[in-house]
Amino acid sequence: MRKVVIAGAGMTRFTGKQPRTAIELFGDAASDAINECGIKSKQVQALFMGNYLGDFEEGQAQLQAFTADYLGLAGIPANRYENACASASAAIRDAFIWVASGQYDIVLAGGAECATKMGTPLATRTFAMSSDSRYEYAAGVTFPGVFAMLAHLYSRRYNIPLETLKSQLYQVSINAHYYGARNPRAQFQKELTLEDARKSPVIASPLQLSDCCPFTDGAAAVIIASEEAARKLTKKPVLIAGVGQASAGSLLSQKEFLPRIRSRELAAEQSYKMSGLGPKDIGVVELHDCFSIAALIALEGLGFFPYGTAGQAVEKGETKIGGKIALNPSGGLKAKGHPVGATGAAQAFEVVRQLRGECGERQVEGVKVGMTDTLGGDGGTICNMILRRSW
Amino acid sequence: MRKVVIAGAGMTRFTGKQPRTAIELFGDAASDAINECGIKSKQVQALFMGNYLGDFEEGQAQLQAFTADYLGLAGIPANRYENACASASAAIRDAFIWVASGQYDIVLAGGAECATKMGTPLATRTFAMSSDSRYEYAAGVTFPGVFAMLAHLYSRRYNIPLETLKSQLYQVSINAHYYGARNPRAQFQKELTLEDARKSPVIASPLQLSDCCPFTDGAAAVIIASEEAARKLTKKPVLIAGVGQASAGSLLSQKEFLPRIRSRELAAEQSYKMSGLGPKDIGVVELHDCFSIAALIALEGLGFFPYGTAGQAVEKGETKIGGKIALNPSGGLKAKGHPVGATGAAQAFEVVRQLRGECGERQVEGVKVGMTDTLGGDGGTICNMILRRSW
Repeated sequence: MRKVVIAGAGMTRFTGKQPRTAIELFGDAASDAINECGIKSKQVQALFMGNYLGDFEEGQAQLQAFTADYLGLAGIPANRYENACASASAAIRDAFIWVASGQYDIVLAGGAECATKMGTPLATRTFAMSSDSRYEYAAGVTFPGVFAMLAHLYSRRYNIPLETLKSQLYQVSINAHYYGARNPRAQFQKELTLEDARKSPVIASPLQLSDCCPFTDGAAAVIIASEEAARKLTKKPVLIAGVGQASAGSLLSQKEFLPRIRSRELAAEQSYKMSGLGPKDIGVVELHDCFSIAALIALEGLGFFPYGTAGQAVEKGETKIGGKIALNPSGGLKAKGHPVGATGAAQAFEVVRQLRGECGERQVEGVKVGMTDTLGGDGGTICNMILRRSW
Repeated sequence: MRKVVIAGAGMTRFTGKQPRTAIELFGDAASDAINECGIKSKQVQALFMGNYLGDFEEGQAQLQAFTADYLGLAGIPANRYENACASASAAIRDAFIWVASGQYDIVLAGGAECATKMGTPLATRTFAMSSDSRYEYAAGVTFPGVFAMLAHLYSRRYNIPLETLKSQLYQVSINAHYYGARNPRAQFQKELTLEDARKSPVIASPLQLSDCCPFTDGAAAVIIASEEAARKLTKKPVLIAGVGQASAGSLLSQKEFLPRIRSRELAAEQSYKMSGLGPKDIGVVELHDCFSIAALIALEGLGFFPYGTAGQAVEKGETKIGGKIALNPSGGLKAKGHPVGATGAAQAFEVVRQLRGECGERQVEGVKVGMTDTLGGDGGTICNMILRRSW
């Protein structure tokens, strides 16, 4: 298979409620990605688009077809991927194989979501559709509840008193907001104080509002190209060194592994194996901190810290820029925002920019390898991708 | 790229309202496909699943993850494809490239839909979400209206009086029911008389109820394997000789080409080119007759008859078994039924069975090459696939 790179990347500002459609937002992000590598639209051979709920949100299904037309790409094959919050990452992984196989040279991949028009109650209910509708949602569980349960399990499994864990979780969110305040595309560009975090309302004990990512509108896109085709497009092609994806059923079917997420361990293993790299090689990771506890679970599942120790590592500053691993310098889902169908592409956008050294005051100096990690539902899908400087 | 085959195929009976879920129906179809080639579940390396509206229909998004778990395949990468009525065909095409590239040897692809629980009014409204929500649905157009307009355009463009066209369309539906009556998996296993067709209520002039496919529950699945891996699985591997896919925007953006469907012409060209075959080589076609007029447009777009002449050809019996091209011997969407997210896989199921000579009284004798054609929305997606005997 051929080497595959990301030749260009674009991303809208992530926001709360705004008037534009997912198609229009994706158009902005894709145009930036296309323009960045100086190609003409007609050079794009296919579109791979993540979107979770365009039908519920805007009454628009099959939005990839209208998106292709809107971008002047009408006629190209265009797929929509619905892998819950990992939709864009699944789209990018398929784009990867179509280029790696030699079938296409230059394609567009990414995702878009306009989740906020629904309002919080309906968004919470419809997002819960990506858990098991037969046994999980039917029992009244929505995602804040799922991750609250994981926090309790985490506390018990690793003998970490709940109050100690809560202190660690506050620090996860404080760090996220610290970087979000320095990311002009972030939804929340404001630091979070420990006092603010402590005072924030309880959502699902032990999780408070400060532990939860917001509902978000936004889009992100990347141009994926063969290494050869990319030579004409960019001086800084970012190599897709490894991809991994795995699935899991309901939480009950994962019970032997909880509070770990089994699918993550499988997907991470695939991406490490394909790239020939390991956790120690990764300088920056954009991972799925939909809730603060999810960040700890992911840091451990990806192999950055032993099980039960990620919270301590965060408290010691080991996940800050300059520490052992730079965690979510974009602000993460928590502060940058989480337009679900776009999130994986936004993670790729940040890692690409980091590897190119374009992140200003939140730049991870000299970073050569980065990783993305996207979770769909409560483990239903995990996608990982390892990106590497190739210049 | 490696040669890729279909090593096994399964399909539920297509029905009206029934109590099981899309996951359970897909489980039945997939189990049949898996058992047919004697593999163990753990040999399946990935799942590619088409589904249009599981979220609206059953409150279940990301259903591919729970489907994988239900089938004992938990852990494998599992994607959901939403390309409206062409969802399963898009899934199969991606499965093809993952195997062709050498990344996987044996994968499962197909689709499922439980559309009927919603009832006709909500199904009609939600299906219309795969047209352009900004300009088409907003103008009050649902799919019966879209295809009625295409019928009027067809009549005018080719100077065929509407009453003449209607007679041709009756014959399209009568043929579909003739074969459906001989397909034990069809939703409507009853012949349609000319009198029944003439008396059926007008849905959107000139289309009557007899011109429209039903809402349907059902699932279909195929095992896709490398030619080498398939040697151990089946004595009759069906070669995927060519695939094609294209997109289009709203009808307005296709106006230069109407009543033709532009994306079909692009997709068919790709599949003919990849296979090195042409319309004259195809002995059986399963094409997208969601409305009777759609069958005529497809027969022409695929190159079987000159523009404006497909209706005459149908009347002359050229599309019957034994004629120039065997059209929808399964009964087609019209009589077999149209569970949208499963339809492309059901078309593949029928062509595979035809090539293997397993279709009893609706067998196309000695057929060596077949084709599938699936339409998403009003041209938003078209997928074509050319299948060939390899023994």
